[in-house]
Amino acid sequence: MTEISFRRAVRADLPAIVALLSDDALGSGREDPAQPPNPRYGEAFDAIESDQNQYLAVAVTDDTVIGCLQLSFIPGLSRLGMWRGQIESVRIAAAQRGGGIGRRMFDWAIEECRRRGCGLVQLTTDKSRPEALRFYENLGFQASHEGLKLALT
Amino acid sequence: MTEISFRRAVRADLPAIVALLSDDALGSGREDPAQPPNPRYGEAFDAIESDQNQYLAVAVTDDTVIGCLQLSFIPGLSRLGMWRGQIESVRIAAAQRGGGIGRRMFDWAIEECRRRGCGLVQLTTDKSRPEALRFYENLGFQASHEGLKLALT
Repeated sequence: MTEISFRRAVRADLPAIVALLSDDALGSGREDPAQPPNPRYGEAFDAIESDQNQYLAVAVTDDTVIGCLQLSFIPGLSRLGMWRGQIESVRIAAAQRGGGIGRRMFDWAIEECRRRGCGLVQLTTDKSRPEALRFYENLGFQASHEGLKLALT
Repeated sequence: MTEISFRRAVRADLPAIVALLSDDALGSGREDPAQPPNPRYGEAFDAIESDQNQYLAVAVTDDTVIGCLQLSFIPGLSRLGMWRGQIESVRIAAAQRGGGIGRRMFDWAIEECRRRGCGLVQLTTDKSRPEALRFYENLGFQASHEGLKLALT
């Protein structure tokens, strides 16, 4: 099995993460693949890093970033004051897909949510990605909710 | 039209908010309606208050809390480093429903997300609440995503 480790992203990972976000069916239309990365990504990185309830993570093998995801730990009153772990911006390098890396990345992420005291892990997935839905359902996620978005212009 | 104002919740609002969360078809099975509120709600309130990217809001009329919602402002790399506003735990007092208060509460919340620089507002709604889905779609939200949850035990 490939050696993979997971750690908090550092600024030097930003080019690799932007490349992952851009190399995606939906991402290609809404990201800027330019290198060095568009300064807006740097500003976003700073905002994530300065918020102790955000955890941008990378999966690394042989010193190469092969995946990323963002965890948001969200305090709330509902469900007896339960913390939620939210997973966003999950990407795995094209050449690495299908080898069980997504599963290991999620096992790690869910454990991290547990370690932070979350009672629930939540995410949304675009309805145009049926294979992603199946992947999450196989992990035990229930598609109990509709996920709605409103673009602000 | 009823005079309604919106403001950040203070600790003294906690009993009213817990009452709103408990008086709900889904909430009644997972909240503790006891007054004074279960200390776990107080701890959650402190966690929300100490996180500058959380905004627990109440709708008030005649000095009475008639609604609540929580905004989470989430920084992220995706979509060129776009901030997201997430809306959670929306409740309106039973006696006040149907009078357009939900609409006004959302107009306010969406404006607050805009003011904070968000490019997108997102939320999930339980599939067992079809009337809520219609309400959000009427506001312009697109049900483009599946919302998945995994309970941690």
